[in-house]
Amino acid sequence: MKALVYQGPYDVAVTDVPDARVEAPTDAVVQITTTNICGSDLHMYEGRTDVEQGKVLGHENMGVVVAVGEAVGRIRVGDRVSLPFNIACGTCGNCFKGLTGFCLRANPGSAGAAYGYASMGPYDGGQAEFLRVPWADFNALRLPEGTEHENDFTMLSDIFPTGWHGVELSKMQPGESIVIYGAGPVGLMAAHAAQIKGAAQVIVVDQQADRLKLAEGLGAVTLDRSAGDVVEKISDLTGGGADRGVDAVGYQAHEIDGVEHPEIVLNELIQVVKPTGGIGVVGVYVPEDPGASSDLAKEGKLAFDFGTFFFKGQSMGTGQCNTKQYNAILRDLIVAGKATPGFLVSHELPLAEAPAGYEHFDKREDGWTKVLLHPGA
Amino acid sequence: MKALVYQGPYDVAVTDVPDARVEAPTDAVVQITTTNICGSDLHMYEGRTDVEQGKVLGHENMGVVVAVGEAVGRIRVGDRVSLPFNIACGTCGNCFKGLTGFCLRANPGSAGAAYGYASMGPYDGGQAEFLRVPWADFNALRLPEGTEHENDFTMLSDIFPTGWHGVELSKMQPGESIVIYGAGPVGLMAAHAAQIKGAAQVIVVDQQADRLKLAEGLGAVTLDRSAGDVVEKISDLTGGGADRGVDAVGYQAHEIDGVEHPEIVLNELIQVVKPTGGIGVVGVYVPEDPGASSDLAKEGKLAFDFGTFFFKGQSMGTGQCNTKQYNAILRDLIVAGKATPGFLVSHELPLAEAPAGYEHFDKREDGWTKVLLHPGA
Amino acid sequence: MKALVYQGPYDVAVTDVPDARVEAPTDAVVQITTTNICGSDLHMYEGRTDVEQGKVLGHENMGVVVAVGEAVGRIRVGDRVSLPFNIACGTCGNCFKGLTGFCLRANPGSAGAAYGYASMGPYDGGQAEFLRVPWADFNALRLPEGTEHENDFTMLSDIFPTGWHGVELSKMQPGESIVIYGAGPVGLMAAHAAQIKGAAQVIVVDQQADRLKLAEGLGAVTLDRSAGDVVEKISDLTGGGADRGVDAVGYQAHEIDGVEHPEIVLNELIQVVKPTGGIGVVGVYVPEDPGASSDLAKEGKLAFDFGTFFFKGQSMGTGQCNTKQYNAILRDLIVAGKATPGFLVSHELPLAEAPAGYEHFDKREDGWTKVLLHPGA
Amino acid sequence: MKALVYQGPYDVAVTDVPDARVEAPTDAVVQITTTNICGSDLHMYEGRTDVEQGKVLGHENMGVVVAVGEAVGRIRVGDRVSLPFNIACGTCGNCFKGLTGFCLRANPGSAGAAYGYASMGPYDGGQAEFLRVPWADFNALRLPEGTEHENDFTMLSDIFPTGWHGVELSKMQPGESIVIYGAGPVGLMAAHAAQIKGAAQVIVVDQQADRLKLAEGLGAVTLDRSAGDVVEKISDLTGGGADRGVDAVGYQAHEIDGVEHPEIVLNELIQVVKPTGGIGVVGVYVPEDPGASSDLAKEGKLAFDFGTFFFKGQSMGTGQCNTKQYNAILRDLIVAGKATPGFLVSHELPLAEAPAGYEHFDKREDGWTKVLLHPGA
Repeated sequence: MKALVYQGPYDVAVTDVPDARVEAPTDAVVQITTTNICGSDLHMYEGRTDVEQGKVLGHENMGVVVAVGEAVGRIRVGDRVSLPFNIACGTCGNCFKGLTGFCLRANPGSAGAAYGYASMGPYDGGQAEFLRVPWADFNALRLPEGTEHENDFTMLSDIFPTGWHGVELSKMQPGESIVIYGAGPVGLMAAHAAQIKGAAQVIVVDQQADRLKLAEGLGAVTLDRSAGDVVEKISDLTGGGADRGVDAVGYQAHEIDGVEHPEIVLNELIQVVKPTGGIGVVGVYVPEDPGASSDLAKEGKLAFDFGTFFFKGQSMGTGQCNTKQYNAILRDLIVAGKATPGFLVSHELPLAEAPAGYEHFDKREDGWTKVLLHPGA
Repeated sequence: MKALVYQGPYDVAVTDVPDARVEAPTDAVVQITTTNICGSDLHMYEGRTDVEQGKVLGHENMGVVVAVGEAVGRIRVGDRVSLPFNIACGTCGNCFKGLTGFCLRANPGSAGAAYGYASMGPYDGGQAEFLRVPWADFNALRLPEGTEHENDFTMLSDIFPTGWHGVELSKMQPGESIVIYGAGPVGLMAAHAAQIKGAAQVIVVDQQADRLKLAEGLGAVTLDRSAGDVVEKISDLTGGGADRGVDAVGYQAHEIDGVEHPEIVLNELIQVVKPTGGIGVVGVYVPEDPGASSDLAKEGKLAFDFGTFFFKGQSMGTGQCNTKQYNAILRDLIVAGKATPGFLVSHELPLAEAPAGYEHFDKREDGWTKVLLHPGA
Repeated sequence: MKALVYQGPYDVAVTDVPDARVEAPTDAVVQITTTNICGSDLHMYEGRTDVEQGKVLGHENMGVVVAVGEAVGRIRVGDRVSLPFNIACGTCGNCFKGLTGFCLRANPGSAGAAYGYASMGPYDGGQAEFLRVPWADFNALRLPEGTEHENDFTMLSDIFPTGWHGVELSKMQPGESIVIYGAGPVGLMAAHAAQIKGAAQVIVVDQQADRLKLAEGLGAVTLDRSAGDVVEKISDLTGGGADRGVDAVGYQAHEIDGVEHPEIVLNELIQVVKPTGGIGVVGVYVPEDPGASSDLAKEGKLAFDFGTFFFKGQSMGTGQCNTKQYNAILRDLIVAGKATPGFLVSHELPLAEAPAGYEHFDKREDGWTKVLLHPGA
Repeated sequence: MKALVYQGPYDVAVTDVPDARVEAPTDAVVQITTTNICGSDLHMYEGRTDVEQGKVLGHENMGVVVAVGEAVGRIRVGDRVSLPFNIACGTCGNCFKGLTGFCLRANPGSAGAAYGYASMGPYDGGQAEFLRVPWADFNALRLPEGTEHENDFTMLSDIFPTGWHGVELSKMQPGESIVIYGAGPVGLMAAHAAQIKGAAQVIVVDQQADRLKLAEGLGAVTLDRSAGDVVEKISDLTGGGADRGVDAVGYQAHEIDGVEHPEIVLNELIQVVKPTGGIGVVGVYVPEDPGASSDLAKEGKLAFDFGTFFFKGQSMGTGQCNTKQYNAILRDLIVAGKATPGFLVSHELPLAEAPAGYEHFDKREDGWTKVLLHPGA
């Protein structure tokens, strides 16, 4: 079958690879209808990880079941499904608590596995014609038959749940104010989530005009970092501090001038969130970052403003999204017409054009917000 | 009346000060029967704060009501009461949510007020014969008449709720394991709290033998930091990581050799708590610490191991205890014989001997765990 | 001053009564700008309670502060405020937990007090020019100055929080389905609340066309009980049972033919809510109802389908709304334009026309959904 | 193999039945070391259900894995395991939420399945030498090797989690008071759970002296119903009403004189629990009870005191325990020596004597509290 494989830094190609097939009785094979390029795919693309050559990339996958192992009983051939980016066994202690992003069995020696991702287990990704899905009864989310809502449903595998998770981690309640740093795909999904969950005020901070415009379309107040005074403006808008904050940026946070300072978003959130407020962190931070500019950052450490964090009595939740905790209700909200995450899609390409998609998206070219691949097209 | 006043670094004295009196219709005056010296009093004693000369110290107070303002209706003259160290108005947005440590009215311009404490408002403390209690109907906790349980009840004003709060912030559930760093009064109260709340395993880490012995008496497993290998030992005890952790040390954390490194306890907690685990921080950290040894620490910043914290998907809650959220149930547990925080008391002194008490306690002399003052004695 | 007083069954009149004034240092006096007639006022109007003659009615009140006692410090003369229908002391054990509907001090011997209401303490109501507000710092909710949103804000004293409370009691989470029985003012507010809180599907059941039309305007699916088959229709709509249910009807539930059967709504909710689902009850049930048609009902008992309730593992929350838990966030949602409860208003009358308002509203004349009184008009 | 089978009312026998074996790739077979007779087995024994003749009874099972299907990967041959009485698929919507007592796949057409039980699916029980365990990776709880704690661990399959569930459903928090009706095995487990979870006061109500004595041994205050005045005594003990209540009796509740009145425990709980308090119901109620004495009760309905329930703003949670939500932490508490549910065991019999065990236990002979069967003995 055809699949997009990693060949080296800035080098991905669509090539022939062995067909995905049922390898264990709990497996299914899914024919991919839509698979997205994720911002985190670019970490691998740019060579900042140790992903092996020949790996099929792609962890945002959906499609139709074409084969199942003999122990698969809930999911059936013909089912249209969305696959959470985290692969989870469904029976370990963490999976039972809903912590499917930290499965103890799918990637032994670590907590958490994923499709087509560095250090997340031996699983190929779904930027391909077919995908092997382990523990399919547990992992696959059934969708309504047909092709309706395809571009909304494709957000269920990662970024819509991840944005929602950021809001959950912040402990936002209806009627509260929330500040979201980063208007990339995850930040926009967080803003969408906050609106659906009844925020009184959603403020989005970024410096890219095209992204801020999308945030505005969601009814958020937007602040352009390059215009300065963000802290004061948030204080004015919220009467002294937002109830909640979300970091949808991560360790590649940088100053307006482009210099990376991995702590600046976190420390600014501590400033703009009020005492006793909560902060959710879904932007990715890494335990080791050999390519970082400072010695602290190389070992994953930050000059964190802990004194103020403590003095204000704030709380913080972090980590990869447990996709399966949210994807069923988000599907239902899409079906009901109350969530429309597909607004984010800027480009739809056949699989063959995936390498070009990576190139444009990696350069963050204007308007390249979210790229979908349709392997069957 | 007699009161202990701050006169300068390492200089406190019992002198005559104006009588405490009803100044507002919502005030009460309490005759102090017991008031404790707190570890945080030592920050002021050592001259590391900007507390003004002449301030009466003491925020861990209990006694009997001797006068009330005309708007006081719930509390009556003759009531035996415990006073939370936080002074709270009872009617602001934070007080209504139970966040009495972050009252928006008692110390305008800041969030949170306290008796006899630097930067916590213009309130004198209770290491004195009498104490003025603002918003007495809201702040005073009524105790059973008489003198029974005096040494247990005196822990209700601060350290028992603060230890309990640490466990709450860690999100510990019954049946879980919890690691507590610091076997000082707050750490020991956290261990006591964790046992009462149904922890399966309580591990306490410190390096002072007398304190570890008290922790053992609570049924905790104790680890002596000076014996090394704490991280490995916890991993072995818990099968790979504790469910929860509590920092009861704060910014004066130091290496075994005595060198202060404010980040070491936090970063070690991140190591010893398992993925998805929670950490509660009740050891004090400060936004500015001019006396700190590093430039980062001077501005309240720490070399925080955020990469690992995020990768493990941990959460953290921090801040001053909202005493009033817990003191009524802790009182009931004392009355029922299920909590006995008074085990901590090592010394009981008349008010006149308070200066000597400060001196011995500040030197952390062996066996000086917790000092009570009885002004009426 | 002028006020509407209860004179006997079906007999209310606007007469002169003594001016409301500051009687305790914690009191305020509010000049009423808007006060609503509530469905529960009709219980008194119809003579089904033991309310005393001469009582000023009215528990849904808002206005401007014109006087405060000397212990009032948070609220100031000139403040525009909404008054929760429950009068709460702010310092008892229940008030501190947010259970202001069950204040232990405002109505000694019972739990909970209210303005102008049978058995809820000696407090006059606000269908008058002025209202005395006890414990004003605790009870009064400050509103933005001016007159904007008057008809939305007037719903903050009771029915908007009460509808919201019903949804809370049902434990609804975003993305779930919820069935609301009763499209009267409270049921409509519950539907509005469920939408704001992110319900995927809101189903409203009633038999009055004008009310169902208002529910439709909120985006709810509506079911006309008189058309039959409600249980089957809900099962079809929700794939076997709704996640949550709200009873906004209460003990005067009746068959289509008008015969009162106080248990029918509850038992039908047990049927239409799925196993493990939750039910919130804000329709009023009473411990004794001498006017009821059956012996069971006279003593407040119902033929409750407990076997099915248990077998399905459902849960139920009940009781009067603790208004103050919700009114601040609902105010903020109104200010943000995300809540518009004023859509409910059908009639606005000067105080002098209040008796006519009672008469029309009591007859549930078509289109008489919600009547506001403006004493100053 | 040998197994105890139901032959008709009051007629059970140990006979030869076909060996339990792996029938699906997700199955395991467990050699039973201990299996208990449950109070709910007696409903079948007494002929009050429609259980089919030939059914092997027994849903409280533990033992050692002797065979696994090819899709079983977490559990291994040789593992010592406890089996929750509920059989759950692990992949349906309810299982993922932890609602394993309401699995949507294990007993199609209903919600929830169990071993050896009327109307709970086609599964044989474990009062036998061997037991087939469906979805073994999900259902089996691994225990420490060996034979230690056997009589404690055997309570993990049902009654210890069920008692704990009752306390959870009541929403009890540490420091609160709780009243438990029924000192049978489940009630005693609820009392044990409440103590571990930090109750300040545990009150147990029953009328059998031997059972009350066991409750006393747990540190509970006991009240003998036959001595009268239970409501007043609880009010005195708790200062006006308990915070929480648990019904561990169920539909066969009866007056002291023996007359069944299925509503009396529930209505008394409503009386003795304070306003805003919570009630957990784990005593079993049934949708239909042809053998009941009243017409209401025949159709599963009760004369429920709803007026008071609502007026007091109480809440209620009900239903079968989701065993898997609690059994892992309860195991850990047993290992840590903090839970000792085995105190309940009164008799241990070989399988051959099971019929005699049923007979004595059914007569509630003095001292027959809990009967264990050891098929291998």
